[in-house]
Amino acid sequence: MILRDAFAGLTRFDEFQRSCNVAPNILSRRLKEMVKDGLLVRVSYSSAPPRHEYRLTDKSRELHPIMLMLTEWGNRHCVNGQPPMLPVDTASGRPITAVVVDKETGQPLTIDRYEIVPGPGAGARLRYRHDYIHQKRAGQMPARFLPPEAD
Amino acid sequence: MILRDAFAGLTRFDEFQRSCNVAPNILSRRLKEMVKDGLLVRVSYSSAPPRHEYRLTDKSRELHPIMLMLTEWGNRHCVNGQPPMLPVDTASGRPITAVVVDKETGQPLTIDRYEIVPGPGAGARLRYRHDYIHQKRAGQMPARFLPPEAD
Repeated sequence: MILRDAFAGLTRFDEFQRSCNVAPNILSRRLKEMVKDGLLVRVSYSSAPPRHEYRLTDKSRELHPIMLMLTEWGNRHCVNGQPPMLPVDTASGRPITAVVVDKETGQPLTIDRYEIVPGPGAGARLRYRHDYIHQKRAGQMPARFLPPEAD
Repeated sequence: MILRDAFAGLTRFDEFQRSCNVAPNILSRRLKEMVKDGLLVRVSYSSAPPRHEYRLTDKSRELHPIMLMLTEWGNRHCVNGQPPMLPVDTASGRPITAVVVDKETGQPLTIDRYEIVPGPGAGARLRYRHDYIHQKRAGQMPARFLPPEAD
């Protein structure tokens, strides 16, 4: 919710509070967490009185295309066929459709084209899940799903 | 969490429960909500004893590229440089990079190329927020942010 509003252009505590309808103490905690996680940066914009605002970082800006995809997905499935938000081309105003493609080939990444496999940082639970599903897909009825307790 | 596991290939109540480490009553409620929202469908796979599993729908499958983008975003920002999950091309095993492009032009949709504007279904609060931000961006110091109470 905060990120959605920050993407839209809100930056100040009272703006987020009124837009999200959230208690000040909860908003304050969330904003602190987001600053700690590098999603927002707290910037002073006035010294007397002291005032600051929250701006997007490169890290959070990278999430914007994901927000765009979610907006389109919501529009495709909205109940009354009347989308609340429309993505448009900034220059021309033309409504746009976003598609996720393989950067190298330009081919759309449909669910059958790729898979997500354990990487070098995968822990024991993740590797167990992957092996279990591999067996299941191969038609071997795997034993009960009993992942290790810890990574 | 449930969706992540369903994308990975888990389908059964006990699989989700062990993978997510969640109390059965909470999981049960979440699964019911997801079936109601059309994200999962409950399918019988055995009649004696009666057993069912939860499968993805077309609606939830459309969220998969978003999960892919989130995985890549997480990998780019993971603390130790050791990504836990890697997206790879199913046929060749080559690691892939996903990019969001405009379906019509094939151009990458960077944050400056598009904006998200109120659509035909936008309520009063959304329209207010949009107008307020427009003023703010135009350098006019808007009045206090006071969105209407209801849509």
